[in-house]
Amino acid sequence: MSGERIYLDHASGGALSPVARAAMEEVLARHGAAPGGGHREARESRDFLERARNQAAGFLGLEDPEGIVFTSGGTESVQSAVLGWGEAAGSGTIYVSEMEHPAVESAVQKLGKKGFVVVRIPVDGEGRFQWRRIKSVGPGLVCVHLAHHDLGTVQDLKTAAAFAKEAKARLFVDATFGAGWVELPKRLEGVDALAISGHRIGGPKGSGILWVRSGFPWKAQMGGGRQEGDRRSGTENLPAIVGLGVAAEEWLRHGEMLRKDTRKAQKALADGIEKNAPIAKLHGPRVGEARSPAHLAFSFAGLEAESLALVMDRVGLAVRGGSGCVTREMKIPPAMKAIGAKPEEARALILFTLGLEMKVSQMEMAVERVEKAVKRLEETMPR
Amino acid sequence: MSGERIYLDHASGGALSPVARAAMEEVLARHGAAPGGGHREARESRDFLERARNQAAGFLGLEDPEGIVFTSGGTESVQSAVLGWGEAAGSGTIYVSEMEHPAVESAVQKLGKKGFVVVRIPVDGEGRFQWRRIKSVGPGLVCVHLAHHDLGTVQDLKTAAAFAKEAKARLFVDATFGAGWVELPKRLEGVDALAISGHRIGGPKGSGILWVRSGFPWKAQMGGGRQEGDRRSGTENLPAIVGLGVAAEEWLRHGEMLRKDTRKAQKALADGIEKNAPIAKLHGPRVGEARSPAHLAFSFAGLEAESLALVMDRVGLAVRGGSGCVTREMKIPPAMKAIGAKPEEARALILFTLGLEMKVSQMEMAVERVEKAVKRLEETMPR
Repeated sequence: MSGERIYLDHASGGALSPVARAAMEEVLARHGAAPGGGHREARESRDFLERARNQAAGFLGLEDPEGIVFTSGGTESVQSAVLGWGEAAGSGTIYVSEMEHPAVESAVQKLGKKGFVVVRIPVDGEGRFQWRRIKSVGPGLVCVHLAHHDLGTVQDLKTAAAFAKEAKARLFVDATFGAGWVELPKRLEGVDALAISGHRIGGPKGSGILWVRSGFPWKAQMGGGRQEGDRRSGTENLPAIVGLGVAAEEWLRHGEMLRKDTRKAQKALADGIEKNAPIAKLHGPRVGEARSPAHLAFSFAGLEAESLALVMDRVGLAVRGGSGCVTREMKIPPAMKAIGAKPEEARALILFTLGLEMKVSQMEMAVERVEKAVKRLEETMPR
Repeated sequence: MSGERIYLDHASGGALSPVARAAMEEVLARHGAAPGGGHREARESRDFLERARNQAAGFLGLEDPEGIVFTSGGTESVQSAVLGWGEAAGSGTIYVSEMEHPAVESAVQKLGKKGFVVVRIPVDGEGRFQWRRIKSVGPGLVCVHLAHHDLGTVQDLKTAAAFAKEAKARLFVDATFGAGWVELPKRLEGVDALAISGHRIGGPKGSGILWVRSGFPWKAQMGGGRQEGDRRSGTENLPAIVGLGVAAEEWLRHGEMLRKDTRKAQKALADGIEKNAPIAKLHGPRVGEARSPAHLAFSFAGLEAESLALVMDRVGLAVRGGSGCVTREMKIPPAMKAIGAKPEEARALILFTLGLEMKVSQMEMAVERVEKAVKRLEETMPR
């Protein structure tokens, strides 16, 4: 296979943006002082930390950076938000779909075992929450994602907030997929808690944001040295936090352009796949406002996802075969079941996830490779 | 103040070793693929991950790297070990001192509220556990540290293991202070679970090891995408893990030399302070086998720790005033209370913690600054 490899598995492991990397390397070269001390080195670290907090607040459209807690990643942010709410609330109803990321789902199930009521929100054929089809059965927590990790579906947070308000429930938004790529409500209106994964916005691995609105019933989940205002103990991972802050600021500055350019690349990829691989079927919404620009989910019915992903790898295209975050034993991604996809489609799901600054020309090359891989795999199939 | 600053607060925030930093930067410059995928980039990341796991196993003297779980740091490792044991065991007795790091203490208190019996292990005037002064009241978990975070006291893990065995309890070792600097039992004999903080062994912030022996009753505390063999979910922080692996390997290769050289620097610092600042009193064991070579705890009775640390900072010496990991409101560190220190000593505790490759000449400069700071602060005191 000639030509550079094309990496389209950014949702699993996002590329670090060059500016974030430079900022991290600057901190890595320093003394390493923790921000909590009284000496000059600690004060320097504290300045870095608070700058990053302000950058994160800016990215979220918040004037007050107070609610921002830096964590070790999206998973920790999600688990801490949901379990921390559960610990503070003690009881209540959790409104949640059946196709959440396992980080959300495992926290919900843990609370379910403790006696919390779990009400499942149905979705339509493109993965959109059907708010009218559920009824409030009492106060608690509404869990919704910004964009779906397998389908790319953007959820309607306004309706989510209205539902939560009527149910006298709090609203948690899992923005670990979608943040940056999809705009958040201004000043996070109607949202009580929110989780962000650093590496999915061009920041480093091992970084994440948990935002909790003042007054949100919540208890810290990591005890110890009381860092981050006693909301997340453990020595601050300053290099990663600084990298995350810089990545967040990039979105604040260039978000519109990044979204527009990515949308262009996404469209080239989607159109090309549909034209050149007729068995391909897009799941989730069409390319447009209802879909994250960094995400495409195609099934190739009749083929098996993992095999197809392997052949794509051999022709120079790195993608994810099957759901982004389920174990290998689960052949049917919950999201595909939830939207009513056929089993042969569900078993043949390939995720194409884009990173920052991807070019249309790369997408055209990717299309060629998709076409080649599909043909190659079809040729090996018994007729 | 002339001359370079001297940083002696490595326990709060350790300096990253140059080899670990170079290894991290290599990974930061790569594609960012998560190790869980099927494509070439993921396989490359998986190779990095497993090399680090082998390095960590070598550092711990283990042939089998299977029990090693990479976490976001020492705090997470400790909390996961203790709370994960609690979740799996359901009930039992926890044997623990009253001067543990807050990461341990907060987990123990959480379990105490859930009905676990907590038996406190008394300590002597140098912080050594008095195993003969407690009796087994049933199976459970014995919590012991390798070296104490405030006193530098090295605990006798052999006796700890013998006690645990007799009590039919499991043994958890908090090695977040002491690992590397103090030798661990060969093949971790008698130990069931162990926590390590990356930045305290020359590795990066945001990295840690939780080791669990096969068969240890334990449940993972971070749910989600089932990374790390379903023992710690969340996208792997590969740059930090790789840095930690390289730092661990340095200890395996050069540990004896690092310990010997640090011991020399420590002795120069301790002797110098005692000679030049007569009000200084060393707490914990004398410099020698019973004390971590990276650690000195001096009180300067009559002075107030935070003020003294500030004056030291002004003359070019960065140290920690007061206990390493308690909130500012707690003027008396629990360890000082436990060893029966006088209140005026407890309020005047300064921690001098060394990093890798510190020189005797630096310690001599540090002594001068300690002397100068003590004199300067004494001059401002009312007589």
